[in-house]
This record gives sequence, structure tokens and C-alpha cells, in this order.
Amino acid sequence: METKIVLSEREMPTVWYNIRADLPEPLPPLLHPETGKPTRLPPFLFPEALNEQEFSMERYIEIPGEVLDIYRLWRPTPLFRARRLEKALGTPARIYYKYEGASPPGSHKPNTAVAQAYYNKAEGVKRLVTETGAGQWGSALAMACRFFDLECKVYMVRISYEQKPYRRLLMQTWGASVVPSPSEDTKFGRKVLAEDPESLGSLGIAISEAVEDAATHEDTRYSLGSVLNHVLLHQTIVGEEAMLQMKMAGDYPDIVIGCIGGGSNYAGAAFPFVREKLVGGKNTQFIACEATACPSTTRGVYAYDYGDTARTAPIALMYTLGHTFVPPAIHAGGLRYHGMAPLISYLIKRGIMEGRAYHQNAVFEAAVQFAQAEGHVCAPETAHAIRATIDEALKCKQTGESKSIFSPFAQM
Amino acid sequence: METKIVLSEREMPTVWYNIRADLPEPLPPLLHPETGKPTRLPPFLFPEALNEQEFSMERYIEIPGEVLDIYRLWRPTPLFRARRLEKALGTPARIYYKYEGASPPGSHKPNTAVAQAYYNKAEGVKRLVTETGAGQWGSALAMACRFFDLECKVYMVRISYEQKPYRRLLMQTWGASVVPSPSEDTKFGRKVLAEDPESLGSLGIAISEAVEDAATHEDTRYSLGSVLNHVLLHQTIVGEEAMLQMKMAGDYPDIVIGCIGGGSNYAGAAFPFVREKLVGGKNTQFIACEATACPSTTRGVYAYDYGDTARTAPIALMYTLGHTFVPPAIHAGGLRYHGMAPLISYLIKRGIMEGRAYHQNAVFEAAVQFAQAEGHVCAPETAHAIRATIDEALKCKQTGESKSIFSPFAQM
Repeated sequence: METKIVLSEREMPTVWYNIRADLPEPLPPLLHPETGKPTRLPPFLFPEALNEQEFSMERYIEIPGEVLDIYRLWRPTPLFRARRLEKALGTPARIYYKYEGASPPGSHKPNTAVAQAYYNKAEGVKRLVTETGAGQWGSALAMACRFFDLECKVYMVRISYEQKPYRRLLMQTWGASVVPSPSEDTKFGRKVLAEDPESLGSLGIAISEAVEDAATHEDTRYSLGSVLNHVLLHQTIVGEEAMLQMKMAGDYPDIVIGCIGGGSNYAGAAFPFVREKLVGGKNTQFIACEATACPSTTRGVYAYDYGDTARTAPIALMYTLGHTFVPPAIHAGGLRYHGMAPLISYLIKRGIMEGRAYHQNAVFEAAVQFAQAEGHVCAPETAHAIRATIDEALKCKQTGESKSIFSPFAQM
Repeated sequence: METKIVLSEREMPTVWYNIRADLPEPLPPLLHPETGKPTRLPPFLFPEALNEQEFSMERYIEIPGEVLDIYRLWRPTPLFRARRLEKALGTPARIYYKYEGASPPGSHKPNTAVAQAYYNKAEGVKRLVTETGAGQWGSALAMACRFFDLECKVYMVRISYEQKPYRRLLMQTWGASVVPSPSEDTKFGRKVLAEDPESLGSLGIAISEAVEDAATHEDTRYSLGSVLNHVLLHQTIVGEEAMLQMKMAGDYPDIVIGCIGGGSNYAGAAFPFVREKLVGGKNTQFIACEATACPSTTRGVYAYDYGDTARTAPIALMYTLGHTFVPPAIHAGGLRYHGMAPLISYLIKRGIMEGRAYHQNAVFEAAVQFAQAEGHVCAPETAHAIRATIDEALKCKQTGESKSIFSPFAQM
């Protein structure tokens, strides 16, 4: 059998899957930060098309042709059977990983960045602003904006700005302007710096800066790389491709594993398989892996909270550590978010998924073991999912069960 | 038509192409550094199988099954039609690039690293040592050694060691030990440091250190990432795949462009097409791109010279700037070699290929233009080939000719 299960461009899915259509009860609404009443996304931050997708109850949403054209620069991505890792572990488990490192910025993030740039461009927006942690999201949006001839500004969490200069260079190569956050460019950034000139920054602070920038510039909209429903929606192409590839492999996952920062990476891979659990009768286990340094689903509360530190965006019902929580400077910058996507939170709250937290030492051990077996060196975020994958595969070794495990994968 | 032309694993070539079988006159021999007489590669540095390949006159050499198994972790690699770049340039040229960035270390280097590790392991070698410039070669060999359970030590040119800490980390992740060169670990390294404690290093110096290490350890052999015939041979899988893919695209290259440091990247992509010129009657143009900072083929001499600064390895007839030449610290670390592969030198000397030198400013401009059009951000070495590709495409725009241009591509 082959090492990689590969789809042709012709076989690439042409719709995104909207899980809201299949939830057992409706997703609780977003609330206005001042009135406390149900609200849509602020139109000064998001274009109408994305606002519609955020609340849509359609099961499938067609991917625009111009977005598909750009997806084809790296999609469909391969699904690997990790035979060398299985052998190294001596496990009867079958391990599959979906390689999203094939995109130019090296992650799944462009799946939504390209879609967001497209819809903003279609509504006459000239400039997009955003925040980024490890830099994966910022670089994805920088590339997407270049394709649609939009200006792009990225507020990059200061600790990552300093740890990952190559990511900053990537964004600049695609034409974006990048500043470390907290920055002097916004009122909120200046306030944070006045209180703590040495602030390492956080996603919450950087979001607040980007939101303020969009709110104060007429031709500018804001772009979010995770958490919101429409972002998770755009990522489902990953899971839809994997569904076809698992079928080609003659297999179906018993366990779907992924890492969660804001939740979109895991949602994209998992939601099509969650659909088969909710309406298709499949009995798959879903394990969402977070960092012990930022344990929103395992040690946070399920409550309405602000997504941004500045408290200007709508509030959402989600697992949260509190919007003032600033996690330590762990390597997995993409997992340093105080909240969790409302859709992922909903599924964990109802026991459809489970959250697990891992310490980065155990996580890095797993990443090295994976790299030494399979060659591919993963991102520190992905390494959390690899830790859980190896743990589950070793459980199979003990019990003798031959489970099938599927996980998405991005590179360093 | 599709964006990527993709082969299945089943269609992957199973032989390497040995251009020595088709040369119009024999390749001049290697000479012993002391006696000046024709010589094979020193057996204390290379295993017998690679020594045989170095001098083989067989047209095709079978790729071992275990090597093919590892190639399948990333091969076959896609061939892209760069339609967005063509459009941005307004050129009637058809531009194809072969994406070798799909391998775990992000370059073509594993094509030979895996083969070399395999043959060394088969002959009972326990440990491989090598040098690396930008780190691409060192990381490829580190990964290959891990697959075959060999120890690996890498002497990394000091300027790159400092400029590219991520590359060093990659090698360590795959289990290699890495030291900056010149180092205190060899007699030669200590000598260089005594003369210039601030030495930035060079490939020539690092090769000398690795050669000394192999020569003074019984169970250790040396591994070279470019220049030698057997290394170029292993890279031909790139061109053989591209040959099949161009056929699938219903096209054939009028121009084949690549960058040259030691020469193996370009040789791998070009030699199968050179075969069609030498024995198949095709009239393709071959452009080999080097850095003006290290212009061996455009400003060097065609003469017998040492490959290593320490003058212990056999001497070869090649284009060279002299074995004591230390190029400035340009970004394209992989192009900082004083000599050039004897096979590439032979083809340039006879006018079958042509050398061109580019300054890094013009090169980086091309890389940014490419990234903004196609998304992919290339390695600084690859950017030299992209400069030439864009120049040739713009010539087509002037003349109205619709030429087909093919080039290999690796990522940052």
C-alpha cells in the first residue's frame, strides 16, 4: 500500500461543511458587550458575507471559484499513513496524519485567510488588519491579501515577534506591514505599554489592537484566524478531503485528535467526522489537545466572556480562563489564547469531544519521536496532538486493540 | 488545466540516470593529490558502492527498494505551472517549477542523503560525518542517518551556524551532533582558528574538517552533499520525474534553469533533459545560475584543483576560484563553494550549458516577485534561478516567443 493517499485537483471538495446545521440544540448566541443582547458580528469589523456565514444554518456552503483556484496552489494535501511511527511504537494502531504543511506558509491557516480576503475584496474593502501569535495566521493572511491586492497590517504578539523573526520576514515578503504588540500604533497598545513597558503581549491584547485599528479606519476590516464559526467553517475542507482519503485507504478513524488554541485547526479536521457521529451513527472519539500553560477547556469555566482584552467585540459562551489571562511564553504560541471557539466549547461541554492538556516537555519528546520515525518535523502546536496520538497508540499496544487514529499536521 | 502536475507513487521512477554513459568524450579523471595519478575516491572516506557509482558507465542505475520506500515519504514531488507569475509578467512564456520543498528538510538534498546512508549502512559503517553551508545538506543527512540508525556529525560553516539556528535545531531533532566550523574538534579547524579566531568559515574549511574526522575514525565515513558524480546521479530522480510530468502537461522545456553551488541541484533537474539533447536531438538551452559573490563558472578557471582547503581529497578538473577562496557572507550559503561539479564544469566548458552570475539584490527582487505571484517563498539559492527565469520570460515578452521554461525549486 502507498505511503501517501493523494487526491487529484479534480477530486478536491467544492463545499465547506457547516456543523451548525447538525447540532442537537442551537448554538448559544453571541451577546453585545454593552447591551447583553444577542448580536451579529459588528459590520465595521466584518463584511456581510462572513457575517451571514457566521449564523448560517445551511449544511453546505459553496466555495467560490477564485478561492478554489488559490487552494489548488497547494491543495488537496496528502494524507500519510505513519507506518514508520507505528513500527517504532510496536503498536497495532493505524495512524494517519493529514499534512497541511504543504501550503506556502506551512499551515492550515490559508484555508480561511484566502476565503476571508476574497469576501472582503468582493465588498470593496481595501485593507485588512489582524493579530498573530506564532505568526502562522499573520503569514497566511499576508499571502491571501497579496492574492487579492489588499493592504495588510499584522499585530504580532511581542514574544513571538522576537522568537520567530523568520515568520515576520515571510509576512513582509508577501507585502504586509508587521508591528510587535503591544504597539505604539493604537490607544489600547499605548495603555498596555504604559502599565508594563516589558509586556510580552498576548493574543487578547493583539486582537484588541487590531479591532481598534479596523474600527477607526473606514476602508479597513478585521480578520480573525480562529474561534469564530465562519473561520472554523472554512477549515472543514481539511476534514472533507480526509474523509475521501480515509475511504480510499479503506479505513475510518476510531479516534480524531488535534491541538486547540482558538480551535479552528482541530475543527477543520474533525467536524466532518463529528457530522458522521451526530447524524451518521459513527462512534468516533474526539480528543482536543491544549497546553497545560493555557488550559481553557480542562481548567477554565464554560461562561460568557470577551474574546478580546479590550472588551469591544461581542461576548461568546465558551471555555475561558478569563479575558485578562496572559499565559507564560511557551513555544506553542498558537495555543496561547484564553478562550476557545464556541463550537468546540459546545461539543466538549456536551461530551461529544473531550479536552486534554499536555505539558510542553512531554509534547516535545513526542515531536522528536515522530520526526525520527517519519522525517517530518512538526509545529510545536501540532506536537500536542502527536503526544496524544502516541499515547493512544501505546494504549492500543497494551490492550491489543487495532484502532485507527487520524490527526491533522502542520510543520515548524 | 490543473495547477500542479502530480505523479502517483506507482509512477515514480525506479532508476537514476548516469550522464557519463552519454558524454561525447570521457570525463577527465580524478587525480591523487600527492602522486598526480588517476585515482578512485579514498576508501577510508567512501563505501565501495558509491565509489563504483562514481565511475560507472551504466546509463541507468537501479534505486534500492529501501531508498524508494523513504523517497515515498515525500516523492514524487509536484510540478507547478506558474500561471500567476506568467500573468503578472505579461509573458507568453510557459513557466514550470518542480517543487522539491515537499521533503522534510525542505530541499532536494535528501535524494542523495538517503541513498548515501543506505550504501554506508549496507557496508557496516556506523557513523557519517559531513559539512554543511546553509544547513540544507546537513539536515538532509541527519534525517537519512536517523532512518538507517547511523550516528551523524555535521560541521556547519560558522556564518550559517549563526544566521540559521533553526537549521541547527532541525539536525539535532533528527539526532545529529552539530558544531560550528572552524571547530576545535579537528587539527585543521584548530589551525584555522589559530590564524583567525573570527573566521566565518567556508565550505572548503568545513569539508577539510569532516574529511579529517572520517580519516581518523575507523567506523566513520565521509558524506558529500554535492560536486561528486554519485551525488549528482542520485539527484536525477528530480529530472526523471519532471520528464514524465512535462509529458503529462503536453509540453517540453526550451530552457532548463537552475542554481549552482556545488552543482547537484541543477544536475538532478537538468541531466535527463541534457540526455535528450545529447542523444535525443532536442535543442534545449541550459542556464546555470551562480552568485556574483562566488562566480566559479563565469570568472573562475577550468583547471585541476582541490575540493577541500586542506588538500587531502583527490583533485578534479573543474571551474574553480581556487581552493583558498573564501566568499563573502551572502545569504545563499549553499552557493558559497569555490569549485563546481566536474560534470557541470565539463558541460559548461563544451558549451552544452552556460553559466550566469547574479547579484543578490536582483535575486531577492525576483524572489519577492515570485512569492507575491505564486505564494511559495523560495530559498535564497533557488532565487538565483528565479531571477534567470523571470529574465528569460521577459525576453519572451519582448520577442513574442512562447518558450517553455523549467526550473527546480526549494523553499526557505
